[in-house]
Amino acid sequence: MQHHALNPDTTKLLSSVSVATLSTRLFARGLRNTFLHGLSPLSTHASNLVGEAFTLRYIPAREDIDVLAAFADYDHPQRAAVEQAPPGSVLVMDCRGMDRSAASGEILMTRLQRRGVVGMVSDGSVRDAGPISQMGFPVYAKSRSAMINLSLHHAVDFNIPIGCAGVPVYPGDILVGDMDGVVCIPRKFADDVAAEAFEMEQVEDFILERVRGGAPLRGNYPPDESTMQLYNESHAPAASTR
Amino acid sequence: MQHHALNPDTTKLLSSVSVATLSTRLFARGLRNTFLHGLSPLSTHASNLVGEAFTLRYIPAREDIDVLAAFADYDHPQRAAVEQAPPGSVLVMDCRGMDRSAASGEILMTRLQRRGVVGMVSDGSVRDAGPISQMGFPVYAKSRSAMINLSLHHAVDFNIPIGCAGVPVYPGDILVGDMDGVVCIPRKFADDVAAEAFEMEQVEDFILERVRGGAPLRGNYPPDESTMQLYNESHAPAASTR
Amino acid sequence: MQHHALNPDTTKLLSSVSVATLSTRLFARGLRNTFLHGLSPLSTHASNLVGEAFTLRYIPAREDIDVLAAFADYDHPQRAAVEQAPPGSVLVMDCRGMDRSAASGEILMTRLQRRGVVGMVSDGSVRDAGPISQMGFPVYAKSRSAMINLSLHHAVDFNIPIGCAGVPVYPGDILVGDMDGVVCIPRKFADDVAAEAFEMEQVEDFILERVRGGAPLRGNYPPDESTMQLYNESHAPAASTR
Amino acid sequence: MQHHALNPDTTKLLSSVSVATLSTRLFARGLRNTFLHGLSPLSTHASNLVGEAFTLRYIPAREDIDVLAAFADYDHPQRAAVEQAPPGSVLVMDCRGMDRSAASGEILMTRLQRRGVVGMVSDGSVRDAGPISQMGFPVYAKSRSAMINLSLHHAVDFNIPIGCAGVPVYPGDILVGDMDGVVCIPRKFADDVAAEAFEMEQVEDFILERVRGGAPLRGNYPPDESTMQLYNESHAPAASTR
Amino acid sequence: MQHHALNPDTTKLLSSVSVATLSTRLFARGLRNTFLHGLSPLSTHASNLVGEAFTLRYIPAREDIDVLAAFADYDHPQRAAVEQAPPGSVLVMDCRGMDRSAASGEILMTRLQRRGVVGMVSDGSVRDAGPISQMGFPVYAKSRSAMINLSLHHAVDFNIPIGCAGVPVYPGDILVGDMDGVVCIPRKFADDVAAEAFEMEQVEDFILERVRGGAPLRGNYPPDESTMQLYNESHAPAASTR
Amino acid sequence: MQHHALNPDTTKLLSSVSVATLSTRLFARGLRNTFLHGLSPLSTHASNLVGEAFTLRYIPAREDIDVLAAFADYDHPQRAAVEQAPPGSVLVMDCRGMDRSAASGEILMTRLQRRGVVGMVSDGSVRDAGPISQMGFPVYAKSRSAMINLSLHHAVDFNIPIGCAGVPVYPGDILVGDMDGVVCIPRKFADDVAAEAFEMEQVEDFILERVRGGAPLRGNYPPDESTMQLYNESHAPAASTR
Repeated sequence: MQHHALNPDTTKLLSSVSVATLSTRLFARGLRNTFLHGLSPLSTHASNLVGEAFTLRYIPAREDIDVLAAFADYDHPQRAAVEQAPPGSVLVMDCRGMDRSAASGEILMTRLQRRGVVGMVSDGSVRDAGPISQMGFPVYAKSRSAMINLSLHHAVDFNIPIGCAGVPVYPGDILVGDMDGVVCIPRKFADDVAAEAFEMEQVEDFILERVRGGAPLRGNYPPDESTMQLYNESHAPAASTR
Repeated sequence: MQHHALNPDTTKLLSSVSVATLSTRLFARGLRNTFLHGLSPLSTHASNLVGEAFTLRYIPAREDIDVLAAFADYDHPQRAAVEQAPPGSVLVMDCRGMDRSAASGEILMTRLQRRGVVGMVSDGSVRDAGPISQMGFPVYAKSRSAMINLSLHHAVDFNIPIGCAGVPVYPGDILVGDMDGVVCIPRKFADDVAAEAFEMEQVEDFILERVRGGAPLRGNYPPDESTMQLYNESHAPAASTR
Repeated sequence: MQHHALNPDTTKLLSSVSVATLSTRLFARGLRNTFLHGLSPLSTHASNLVGEAFTLRYIPAREDIDVLAAFADYDHPQRAAVEQAPPGSVLVMDCRGMDRSAASGEILMTRLQRRGVVGMVSDGSVRDAGPISQMGFPVYAKSRSAMINLSLHHAVDFNIPIGCAGVPVYPGDILVGDMDGVVCIPRKFADDVAAEAFEMEQVEDFILERVRGGAPLRGNYPPDESTMQLYNESHAPAASTR
Repeated sequence: MQHHALNPDTTKLLSSVSVATLSTRLFARGLRNTFLHGLSPLSTHASNLVGEAFTLRYIPAREDIDVLAAFADYDHPQRAAVEQAPPGSVLVMDCRGMDRSAASGEILMTRLQRRGVVGMVSDGSVRDAGPISQMGFPVYAKSRSAMINLSLHHAVDFNIPIGCAGVPVYPGDILVGDMDGVVCIPRKFADDVAAEAFEMEQVEDFILERVRGGAPLRGNYPPDESTMQLYNESHAPAASTR
Repeated sequence: MQHHALNPDTTKLLSSVSVATLSTRLFARGLRNTFLHGLSPLSTHASNLVGEAFTLRYIPAREDIDVLAAFADYDHPQRAAVEQAPPGSVLVMDCRGMDRSAASGEILMTRLQRRGVVGMVSDGSVRDAGPISQMGFPVYAKSRSAMINLSLHHAVDFNIPIGCAGVPVYPGDILVGDMDGVVCIPRKFADDVAAEAFEMEQVEDFILERVRGGAPLRGNYPPDESTMQLYNESHAPAASTR
Repeated sequence: MQHHALNPDTTKLLSSVSVATLSTRLFARGLRNTFLHGLSPLSTHASNLVGEAFTLRYIPAREDIDVLAAFADYDHPQRAAVEQAPPGSVLVMDCRGMDRSAASGEILMTRLQRRGVVGMVSDGSVRDAGPISQMGFPVYAKSRSAMINLSLHHAVDFNIPIGCAGVPVYPGDILVGDMDGVVCIPRKFADDVAAEAFEMEQVEDFILERVRGGAPLRGNYPPDESTMQLYNESHAPAASTR
């Protein structure tokens, strides 16, 4: 499936809103299973990870196939995926939640970063966690494990629909990550969800300020009509510049 | 990948030996992860399930895609897989070990049986477990669950390498099932493993008889040279008829 | 919350259809989490378990409170629940999925049966599994465990909304159980779901007969217009007597 | 630690009471963790499994040590344990709850049975489950798995304290098994617990009869003074013959 | 159940001792299950979290009830609990250990903090983990998750006994949290446990100093009579000022 | 089993290479299960933890044996292990992966450190995690828990083969830990694996530099002949000084 490039405005909006808010906008559409539960960022990063999913699928390893010599083939699907994931994409690895062996390590992450890929997400584990956390390259994984991927995983194909952390990820879907973790936004909802989330966060910042000032939840969270009127008055000029 | 039809002699041998013995022969080749752990047969069957793997892959469902109307498309991959799995094959479903919704139910099992497919194996669950257990059609699954597959699973492609219960299954691999569960024999090892397993069981039956008669493990299990000589004497004629 | 007695026709319909079909009818309404995953019946029973939920909630035990002497109080909530669950109801126990100690045993099951309660459902375990499986009283549980409930559970209140096996159960909801397990039908949907499920099973039995006869899925499952016409013709008279 | 032989009267009493009742008597002593949770019997047996624990400890396997050739050594700890467990004992295997490979199979079970060992208990799995279930030899395990123990387990020592299914088992402790599963009675409590359990079951049978006849829990379960008086009257003669 | 306000001296003592020491004092009373296993603090805080439990109970969500509009009711139990938890209390949420959706987020935490509630403890997850970790408000949770609570949880009642992380929590119990996690001290033991723990830590600090200086465990840990004499001599004056 | 002291050169090499590289060298020998999955370091440390395994085995606790008074015996196995683990060793605790109670705390860690033991590894949890993380003493554990070890664990013997985090650990094996976690190197492979790993990391550093400079994976990772020639040229002088 080919997609038009993601609207740069959408990318900018998605960079500035929380994964929590995005999840709520998807929930409002009846999508309850969009958050990749159980993954943690290896390092903090100032703004969100935002990019299009480029997927890689692993199946369990077999001892006679998945030997060190397998990597002598530079067209090995894991290596091919790293070389083909386009700039601006996020490489998403389906490890079936198995994390006793690492899905990948420092050299591949370095290559991805050098090629303009913006991050990596896996429901398995990563090795070289120390150096990777210092690279300025957003990586989300289930855990850390030193063991080489060949001992548990066999890369089989890429750029196809996968599951990751129990969530469906289709190529071209938009992944957004912050300190809470990663949400997968189905491509067709990306523009609308980004706009709604930005608007919703404006309102929530306004509410938060009021709650900090002592306002009760009643009337404020969610905002009733009079609170919304106050919000609209205070945000009227701002709205025109967005 | 195309395969020659499985040698009928191999099928016959595999029908008569235990999954335990087959696993040991694979272990002897360094393959430690060939048993599909955690699956149970829905019913007892007199001889082993034996057939070539025809695979089906699910990813997690998405609420806006996986609705009842999805089945109005008769080319839906789940339905297509059921119609295309060849006679003599075993349909193997990769459910990522998720069993809160059923992978399939009675009507599809009936269609498989009618088409000459010899069994179904899934690391998810099945619904209509009562009627299915009476069909004379071997089904192995992780559990029973009534909820429709669309609530958790999205069939995406078939006849590709998959993982099932943590084991790699390539199309054309040979699945064998008995009361212990199911083993996946990589296609290229099938003939040799079948022959070795049959031979090994002859020996083990001989040992078992001796142990029942009071023989100690020492010298008998594993058999030392003199026990093997006794075995060879008693089995010399039998060997020629195999 | 008080409920009118369940319509006897609804009870009859629910007794005759499968939990799988009922789950599908709930799924059609957007309810994906109504099947109490992971519970097994202790014994087979000819027709479905059908009854209204009467709930009991446990919290974890505390060693200084939950001692054998606690049962000297005949108003202990566990005992009170057993005595107050009305005839025709199903006692549903919220054990938080903890099954290292039994939720209850033979004497309480006997009292429930004697009082006209129609079954028991728990996401914990039961003790005295042997005798209970011979009582003709439907019991669904996660597992068997001999240890007394006081070592893990503290009964705290009853006839309130609970969770059981990850599913919300409100007093008065309708529980239906067969070999697949138990579904919880929200009270307000019971009549409609029962009627729809009965109708749907009539159609599915018709389809099943055709599939057994060699019909392909295409055109039959789900039934297209012409198959439905055949069904309607063959069922026209039957429909009038229902 | 050496033990005097178990009192034959104690053995007889333990054969006739339920594991549930025994657990309650241990609970009354403050022992909450004596039931080996999660193990199932491979077959039904008329009376309880009762025997002294003879233990065997496994650690995880290592690929260069745990090869088929390891069994060429007839003093391999697993084989030695099978040959040394005394008649009347129960072989208890500590598999650390790991069940992806079988702890043992038919030939070893046959040898144990032939030597007068009365049963086997493991928190791992067994292979050859079909034939073993027909042997008339009580086996309790977590699951069934065909893979040979060498792929996951390394037998290291025996007749030492172990954990099994989360419960401490010291050599000489008394294991009792029925359909609910297995309880481990610390040796020093065996006589008293057996006597108390027998007495308690007499009372419970009396209560059960009354509950079947329509008696409420109040006054009967637990029995108040007047119920106990009725019990004592009805059991006075019986008591003298026990 | 109404409680007298917690003795301010007790609060002060509990602020200064470790959760480990408190757990040991409860263990000494036979209470083995008082530590809320598996919860982590979102941020470090200089002194312990100490407060009385105010509880909130969730059951699983139902798709037709738990929609965004549910929050339009300002008396929704989750919101009511946030507004009613008294100053000095800790809001404890029973999420049944389910953490795929967040139990709550930044705005509610802000309101709690503003109202004088001293912390929040949940066996589910929280969203907005980044901002919450900067608030100076102690929050303990099982994990981080962005998804809104409505997708998994339904708030049903509050200020009742609950289970949290497998531990019973009664309203008014005292929760204490440090870097190890959170312990629940049954209200009636709070004063005594606080005093004992303070005393015990004085002794342990003394032992620690000796061990740092090279003293062996023998005679020192636990302290024998002569070590206690040394301790008493060195602490005699200090004791009078406590 | 007695071992010669570890070659100091080996120790130095192991201190400087990553656990990931070491795991790969073991994988190349067919050892796939050497990484102690799921353990985290309590604090960062500049160079690797490196030391010989000194083991301690726990079984589940029993309420009548494992009471506070048990520690009055200074020869209690847990205390004895702490006093007998030799300088340069790593104390490795087999907690069967059970982490609801702590395996040990600050005073024992302090004693180990004072005695020259270089670190502690456990597949259970630790208490006093705050102070321990400030001690400059490497500790790896599964989690943090405040509850005293006696409530869950009974120390039974030491300096014997154990399992830890699913990996076999024999006394004298070499444990190496970095930010990814801990690998167990069988003693007999230590010298060779250390040398190979050092060499391999030299090559990988060279590759990493090239990838950072824009080189593709093809030809570089793994290095083909011409890349190796470039490496050999650039490292020729360096090699002579190692």
